[in-house]
Amino acid sequence: MEKLEQLYEGKAKKVYKTDDPNEFIIEYKDDATAFNGEKKGSIGGKGVINNKMTELIFTMLEKQGIPTHFIKLLSESEQLVKAVTIFPLEVIIRNTAAGSICKRLGLEEGLKLEAPIFEFCYKNDDFGDPMINDYHVIAMKLATKEDIEVIRDMTFKINDILKAYFLEKGINLVDFKIEFGKTADGQIVLADEISPDTCRFWDVKTNEKLDKDRFRRNLGNVEEAYVEMLKRVKA
Amino acid sequence: MEKLEQLYEGKAKKVYKTDDPNEFIIEYKDDATAFNGEKKGSIGGKGVINNKMTELIFTMLEKQGIPTHFIKLLSESEQLVKAVTIFPLEVIIRNTAAGSICKRLGLEEGLKLEAPIFEFCYKNDDFGDPMINDYHVIAMKLATKEDIEVIRDMTFKINDILKAYFLEKGINLVDFKIEFGKTADGQIVLADEISPDTCRFWDVKTNEKLDKDRFRRNLGNVEEAYVEMLKRVKA
Repeated sequence: MEKLEQLYEGKAKKVYKTDDPNEFIIEYKDDATAFNGEKKGSIGGKGVINNKMTELIFTMLEKQGIPTHFIKLLSESEQLVKAVTIFPLEVIIRNTAAGSICKRLGLEEGLKLEAPIFEFCYKNDDFGDPMINDYHVIAMKLATKEDIEVIRDMTFKINDILKAYFLEKGINLVDFKIEFGKTADGQIVLADEISPDTCRFWDVKTNEKLDKDRFRRNLGNVEEAYVEMLKRVKA
Repeated sequence: MEKLEQLYEGKAKKVYKTDDPNEFIIEYKDDATAFNGEKKGSIGGKGVINNKMTELIFTMLEKQGIPTHFIKLLSESEQLVKAVTIFPLEVIIRNTAAGSICKRLGLEEGLKLEAPIFEFCYKNDDFGDPMINDYHVIAMKLATKEDIEVIRDMTFKINDILKAYFLEKGINLVDFKIEFGKTADGQIVLADEISPDTCRFWDVKTNEKLDKDRFRRNLGNVEEAYVEMLKRVKA
């Protein structure tokens, strides 16, 4: 599989064309950013860890009936995926209040939500990924009403699977951000990654944060948290 | 009808108890604020105009099957209304992109939206009335799922009625903010006001702004715009 033209470089990954129009290569980077790019840095080993963790989790989700873009690992930091057009939407589930929502709505960090909160954000750095709702998505033609239904149903299913999966590993899945893409033949699949970059993971016993909040908030032991999470996912 | 203890003072109105527990008196003020209270001022005659305009529009809406809190005018600046518990929600409809949404999502002011955009904001000055969605409303117990359904259905009906009503008066109803309350016997009714403070009104021929944007943006002829809008509503 040959790595051709770079299609896209994001904060944490690069996407390349291949000689097969239906397949892309994703290269995971160690670069880390926070607060819409205001804080920049690097987390040693992150690319390798997130590449591996995403392989393991996407494979597990596929087995439970969730279609994903993942095909196979190519190297420690690269994976082959289905070529998809990404919806410009960050799809967020919050099981426990943490991060931006606490400041924005005055909720206490750690507040267990009675029902999960589902959010769409418009994936656009120029505007700081603002929160939007179904009506904005449709008016701005970011997705159709039908796409939204599929994405929402799949997201709640993914949350149910992931909550149980991580709980077995001693992890409280506080919240996560996922992205979806559409293949050339019109199938909506889970894309992007699932990792400590895109989820909040709290140890169920100690409430220790094992995710990118260690980087965002300068809590120290950032690399160690990523290593620990991969260890738990592999267990 | 006796005006008793003041229950609440908002930016543009005061609410008083009466000797009937099922009725409140609302007093409309000339005070005007914008940008979450950053800009403060006064618009001469606004209280009288908004009191009268809300009477006329709420009466018209009642005739078309929309339950409202309005009972009767008491004076030039006061009206008697049903005692309701206000949902802490700003309910917004946007037919044309204008104001905050343009900056937030990069839409061009004046963009006609293919379908109306419906938004909830959490009515809380400390947090700047942030936009929320159904899931936040339910998680924060601001309203139930059933309340949301009633509020949304009623809001879209109100939009249809108001759009046609104002178009006959040569006005493009760009967007508006309404509030709902619940009576002691559990009925959800339209509350608050409908006026140039809470709607964007553009003349259909000239696109001239006939609403609070004249105050917000220092466009001049603020009082004249309010007078003109009342004239058109009375016509």
